[in-house]
Amino acid sequence: MAHTVRDKAKLLARVRRIQGQTAGLERLLDSETDCTAVLQQIAAIRGAVNGLMAAVIEGHLTDHVVKEPEQAQRQRDLDAVLQVIKSYLK
Amino acid sequence: MAHTVRDKAKLLARVRRIQGQTAGLERLLDSETDCTAVLQQIAAIRGAVNGLMAAVIEGHLTDHVVKEPEQAQRQRDLDAVLQVIKSYLK
Amino acid sequence: MAHTVRDKAKLLARVRRIQGQTAGLERLLDSETDCTAVLQQIAAIRGAVNGLMAAVIEGHLTDHVVKEPEQAQRQRDLDAVLQVIKSYLK
Amino acid sequence: MAHTVRDKAKLLARVRRIQGQTAGLERLLDSETDCTAVLQQIAAIRGAVNGLMAAVIEGHLTDHVVKEPEQAQRQRDLDAVLQVIKSYLK
Repeated sequence: MAHTVRDKAKLLARVRRIQGQTAGLERLLDSETDCTAVLQQIAAIRGAVNGLMAAVIEGHLTDHVVKEPEQAQRQRDLDAVLQVIKSYLK
Repeated sequence: MAHTVRDKAKLLARVRRIQGQTAGLERLLDSETDCTAVLQQIAAIRGAVNGLMAAVIEGHLTDHVVKEPEQAQRQRDLDAVLQVIKSYLK
Repeated sequence: MAHTVRDKAKLLARVRRIQGQTAGLERLLDSETDCTAVLQQIAAIRGAVNGLMAAVIEGHLTDHVVKEPEQAQRQRDLDAVLQVIKSYLK
Repeated sequence: MAHTVRDKAKLLARVRRIQGQTAGLERLLDSETDCTAVLQQIAAIRGAVNGLMAAVIEGHLTDHVVKEPEQAQRQRDLDAVLQVIKSYLK
């Protein structure tokens, strides 16, 4: 079973937190609040998205790479996540 | 008038795009889709949040710093955004 | 006088620190040290480069944008640094 | 043999490129060049450091995780690199 299935409840809780933060940002913009509050809310959303990404990358590398018995499959599963990691290192 | 008010419609459109992407991520997790699709969706959300942040920082620096006639106020308005920029450079 | 001239000694001290860290990385690779030490050294160099970037961006925005009396020149000086900031937000 | 040994020549070439770029930055600061050139040089160094990091992470995950026959050792080798990846996702 994949990590995104096993950890489904935790990952969905993170997604709902991001949805709550994004709804909060919408209200800040709608109510024409001071733009410093807007900047801080966007920074908070970015932090939550990065935390979710780190959790999924860790789950992926642990389940599909560390626990996978076949080396050829480990290589394929690594390649999928390496592309995402490299996009963060540009 | 602040940039987050003048550009409100555009910024709200970006926020709603992020909300749509986050709802899509929720569906991917709920339907127990392949985790590579989950990783790519999170990367897309991160890109959209970064684009929104860049738009608000640019609006802030243009309206509150470039167009502000008083130097002391320009300094205060710069300080607000410098904190956010520095958090990206850690 | 530009901030990179006024702050020259401090900025050169940061550059020399990066040179020292990079020479250390060269020695780690040459002596075929454990690769975890290599990863940590690269992470330290990245932190020092980001700190230098933050210092130059802050100096630029303060000197060329906050302290510049002409609005049209402030806009031009902002544009130069916005390109760099945006490249961090991709 | 570790990837940092096998890929030693390539990695050292990357390190020397960063040293050349850093020496160039020192000259730019010393000659009191326009600060936009300084910003661009720092951005180029950051790109080169990120490229080196991506190469070492990829080598680490391939050699120590994909090619390692023992699962417990794969987990330990993953943990070393996860710490670095997570520091990029903050």
